[in-house]
Amino acid sequence: MLKLGMLGAGRIGRLHGDNVAKLVKGAKLEAIADPYLTPDMKQWANDLGVQKVYTDPEEIFKDSEIDAVLICSSTDTHAEFLMKAAAAKKHIFCEKPIDLDTDRIKEAIKAADDAGVKLMVGFVRRFDRDHNKVGEIVASGKMGKPHIVKITSRDPEGPPLSYVKVSGGIFTDMMVHDFDMARFLVGSEVTEVTAMGEICIDPDIAQYNDVDTAIATLRFANGAIGVIDVSRAARYGYDQRVEVHCDKGSVMDENNLENNVKISTGESVTVAKPTWFFLERYNEAFVKEVQDFVDAIENNTEVPVTGHDGLMSIYIAQAANLSFKEKRTVALSELM
Amino acid sequence: MLKLGMLGAGRIGRLHGDNVAKLVKGAKLEAIADPYLTPDMKQWANDLGVQKVYTDPEEIFKDSEIDAVLICSSTDTHAEFLMKAAAAKKHIFCEKPIDLDTDRIKEAIKAADDAGVKLMVGFVRRFDRDHNKVGEIVASGKMGKPHIVKITSRDPEGPPLSYVKVSGGIFTDMMVHDFDMARFLVGSEVTEVTAMGEICIDPDIAQYNDVDTAIATLRFANGAIGVIDVSRAARYGYDQRVEVHCDKGSVMDENNLENNVKISTGESVTVAKPTWFFLERYNEAFVKEVQDFVDAIENNTEVPVTGHDGLMSIYIAQAANLSFKEKRTVALSELM
Amino acid sequence: MLKLGMLGAGRIGRLHGDNVAKLVKGAKLEAIADPYLTPDMKQWANDLGVQKVYTDPEEIFKDSEIDAVLICSSTDTHAEFLMKAAAAKKHIFCEKPIDLDTDRIKEAIKAADDAGVKLMVGFVRRFDRDHNKVGEIVASGKMGKPHIVKITSRDPEGPPLSYVKVSGGIFTDMMVHDFDMARFLVGSEVTEVTAMGEICIDPDIAQYNDVDTAIATLRFANGAIGVIDVSRAARYGYDQRVEVHCDKGSVMDENNLENNVKISTGESVTVAKPTWFFLERYNEAFVKEVQDFVDAIENNTEVPVTGHDGLMSIYIAQAANLSFKEKRTVALSELM
Amino acid sequence: MLKLGMLGAGRIGRLHGDNVAKLVKGAKLEAIADPYLTPDMKQWANDLGVQKVYTDPEEIFKDSEIDAVLICSSTDTHAEFLMKAAAAKKHIFCEKPIDLDTDRIKEAIKAADDAGVKLMVGFVRRFDRDHNKVGEIVASGKMGKPHIVKITSRDPEGPPLSYVKVSGGIFTDMMVHDFDMARFLVGSEVTEVTAMGEICIDPDIAQYNDVDTAIATLRFANGAIGVIDVSRAARYGYDQRVEVHCDKGSVMDENNLENNVKISTGESVTVAKPTWFFLERYNEAFVKEVQDFVDAIENNTEVPVTGHDGLMSIYIAQAANLSFKEKRTVALSELM
Repeated sequence: MLKLGMLGAGRIGRLHGDNVAKLVKGAKLEAIADPYLTPDMKQWANDLGVQKVYTDPEEIFKDSEIDAVLICSSTDTHAEFLMKAAAAKKHIFCEKPIDLDTDRIKEAIKAADDAGVKLMVGFVRRFDRDHNKVGEIVASGKMGKPHIVKITSRDPEGPPLSYVKVSGGIFTDMMVHDFDMARFLVGSEVTEVTAMGEICIDPDIAQYNDVDTAIATLRFANGAIGVIDVSRAARYGYDQRVEVHCDKGSVMDENNLENNVKISTGESVTVAKPTWFFLERYNEAFVKEVQDFVDAIENNTEVPVTGHDGLMSIYIAQAANLSFKEKRTVALSELM
Repeated sequence: MLKLGMLGAGRIGRLHGDNVAKLVKGAKLEAIADPYLTPDMKQWANDLGVQKVYTDPEEIFKDSEIDAVLICSSTDTHAEFLMKAAAAKKHIFCEKPIDLDTDRIKEAIKAADDAGVKLMVGFVRRFDRDHNKVGEIVASGKMGKPHIVKITSRDPEGPPLSYVKVSGGIFTDMMVHDFDMARFLVGSEVTEVTAMGEICIDPDIAQYNDVDTAIATLRFANGAIGVIDVSRAARYGYDQRVEVHCDKGSVMDENNLENNVKISTGESVTVAKPTWFFLERYNEAFVKEVQDFVDAIENNTEVPVTGHDGLMSIYIAQAANLSFKEKRTVALSELM
Repeated sequence: MLKLGMLGAGRIGRLHGDNVAKLVKGAKLEAIADPYLTPDMKQWANDLGVQKVYTDPEEIFKDSEIDAVLICSSTDTHAEFLMKAAAAKKHIFCEKPIDLDTDRIKEAIKAADDAGVKLMVGFVRRFDRDHNKVGEIVASGKMGKPHIVKITSRDPEGPPLSYVKVSGGIFTDMMVHDFDMARFLVGSEVTEVTAMGEICIDPDIAQYNDVDTAIATLRFANGAIGVIDVSRAARYGYDQRVEVHCDKGSVMDENNLENNVKISTGESVTVAKPTWFFLERYNEAFVKEVQDFVDAIENNTEVPVTGHDGLMSIYIAQAANLSFKEKRTVALSELM
Repeated sequence: MLKLGMLGAGRIGRLHGDNVAKLVKGAKLEAIADPYLTPDMKQWANDLGVQKVYTDPEEIFKDSEIDAVLICSSTDTHAEFLMKAAAAKKHIFCEKPIDLDTDRIKEAIKAADDAGVKLMVGFVRRFDRDHNKVGEIVASGKMGKPHIVKITSRDPEGPPLSYVKVSGGIFTDMMVHDFDMARFLVGSEVTEVTAMGEICIDPDIAQYNDVDTAIATLRFANGAIGVIDVSRAARYGYDQRVEVHCDKGSVMDENNLENNVKISTGESVTVAKPTWFFLERYNEAFVKEVQDFVDAIENNTEVPVTGHDGLMSIYIAQAANLSFKEKRTVALSELM
């Protein structure tokens, strides 16, 4: 039974905590630390039967009973906690991104490597039943070489402007998931990025030099090309579809729907909408990613999403930002 | 926190037990009794943290800490356990059927009524997200009066002959679920049944006067008519679809699929198969039915599937058996 | 170039006439005869370039230039015209039904046989791209033995009461198409029929002892069973779906839709409705059936729908009527 | 009855000719001219009942009985024939493109304008039932402002290398259809283009500096953005899908399939492939575009695809070529 220490008990932390308590096999939540601990968090930890509840993260690092940490705190603390956990010889599951600075990411990866602990980055979409199946089919080689990867990624609603201000922009904050997905699906590194964007939804976003609707095209080392389109306003729900067009045909998935009911009347034929947002769509994937992390430790196998994956997605996001600004294709080699 | 005692820790019992332990809110599994208790069952109960593990069901009935029972034992014990639980003033969730004898079912229902305890029958399909949605839409009245209900219900594979021998026949054992579903979807009582069947799959079944492929048509008190087709061999998976054709249009659901991936090649375009069998398809419905039972006790509201529902489905099955034998339409009133 | 004479230039006649003129290869419309010839019909014939336009059908029979006739007149004239055409050694395409009296049908079939001319009955649905494909796949044997055939057949709107009065009832008028389709799909003769029906839509229909919503179940000589449901009111359009559940799996078709467009909004996701009625749905099938008739003459091969097919569908309809009346299963052998 | 003269009786010419003869209302094919007239073409014209069959196009221009011309000859002759037809005061339907040189296109448009004749360009996809419906829904405004247009456009197989050599490249030859479609769907002019491509299928194409797999992104004057992906090798058939993501939701179409049959077995669930290529997919659209041309003349209304549309698609293709070469976003204003 692997003992986990959680750093940060906000929305995503509690989601993982609930999953570990109820659905993940072979692990238990041993301790929680959050500097901004609220009575609510305490109650929640209590309900889960977690005895060790701290405000000081150091309590986690120095607890020799804890085998691994789940870093679910705010982005600016990820790298620091990661390096401390590595120093304490604890395996690490870190929410994405490790950091927005690539040097800092490299430093963190090195720390984990040097300490000989496992480091997994939480790109949850890779664990989605359907996206994962698409990736698996492409990787099997039975469709032949991938030619085009195509990702539709639209949120049902945008975040508040206060979040947009500090988000790092749509390419870093939102499309970074799709950059990782594209790498996963194609099984090759991105070499060039071209990005464009527009303010289609809320003009107020202009003050932060951000956009709410964007398209990025990618070139891969293995000769494939790709495109991602994102929007902050898909009124019908979370639109998450992927497609890989290969030499022998195409593999794609459709959205998960709220139900499989069809209503036919004289006015219309209606089917269900896609599930609302990531908590609904990636509900099971959140369980699976932590399960896979736990299993990788248990079996001493490689984690399915590495520090390198976390690093590359940030490089691609930076290339997209630069391309968007300069209206030209940016080679990743320019940034490395 | 409602305390539950479980009678029978076989496959279905353990399924409910796991669900109560991990997913059902507001209840805990307090005790388990199974006359044929195996070391496996003990280990399982232990893992769930259940302290009270008995071979004698009486231990459950006399335990004043237990608020409600889950009857998951073999069919021939249902009515007896039900009446004992009623006598002990415990609420009752009983797996279907209560009994195969309608007088005995009536007796059991009366016992629960007299004791003032809640009695719910485990027709799990009513809690399926999609079937439930269809029923809800019809019940809302927005589609107008129902005209035709149509149920496709095919198992991926038949049970062993040893089971067929004691099953009571395809109408009682298998189609009984669909009879309940039909009543649920149409929201009216069945008045007439006509049934036919054939041995299409395994000729060995003939020795038990059973069939493996059957169709029953129904007439309802509200003027609707309906049809159910069942098969013991849908090689592609569990085929569970319902449709209600109403005055203003039609409401139907499609099968749940293993995934939403489509693969297009020069040879074919393939999509996923339906989920394999009832454990996969009604996975979430099993949680929801027990949750609804727990909530009904908590809130003192009516249970969603009553003893009357359990009784009527058996009457319909008996009418189907008679119709099949005599090649004529049988009115339920003949049997009541 | 086969020369065709048409008997009856009503709606269905003109449909065939237009098709022959524009889309059927290897045939031309040489003459038209309609006792109730209107100026409109004349104009239509003129526009098609047909020179020979008569009120007297005899003109068609005695015209030695005419190779084959299309009988598109009212049902009560079919058998007479058929026998006259046979006597004149002309091949015959006859709209369904040949007659409502089975002795008369046999007489007509015999006349064609004796004359050595081809006789084809216009069960147009067999020529539908999708239904035909389903039948072809079942016939290929690759799905194994058929177990269950299932036909959904619902009209978007009912005919006027004046038509209902003389229609012969829903089983003879409407379901006869489905009886033929069932035989086509299963590839075996029907041996038993059980039918039920209700008045769900228009109570005025009761005066003609007819119903507007019905279900019939069938047993086939090869051991398959089947069910057909029909309704006179599918508000969403013509609902025409078939399914054959076989030993190795299932083959089914979906409705033809008005388009392939999906509209997703915050309120709903809508897709197109089925095409409106038989003229839209069987548009191409009407061309194909006449083309196949023409080709069968040209190549001296068997016609795809024979007089025997026309006869059997009427027997089944009669058995359905009797079953409906007597609430019991009727063996076709009772009627033969 | 509008009298049409056809210039060029190759594959596309004969397609239009057959359609005019059989399916287009209000027009007849009066004359055909093809400098490379073959006995086959003569026979075909004869079968259609066309008396005037020439090798010299001038015969068409000087024939005062001819109201309008269909220019179906090779691309290099389009502009010349167009201007001659204009001079002869004949309305003009011109296959795409008018020319590859934008000055020459402008000259041709001016000639038609000055002559007061109608000029329509044959972008057939606009007349596809599904694409047209998508465009119509967006244009209605009920989905709100368009944000993202997305076009998938993949041929089942590439042309021979001999054709690639003279085709003008994938952006001009193939994607030009999609550029027009994008403008049609969004209802606004393209202002910027960024294009990328790869050789994924046949390395031999490198000698012509062409690619076989490409993606172009577009920016529109109304603030929308868009993306098109094309491939010369969709083994499963012609992949033609469009989607417009708008402020209030999304409108998209799916491929037309060969049939609506689903086959479910223990191995797989298969559905039909998309129709094979443009002759199958745009079969009805080819009729509709000529019908609309004929109707526009008959009713003296505007043609649905203008010379301006023809010009703009070439500008976009040129911008795409330049972007591809220089790896940067190209503003259309640079080229105008």
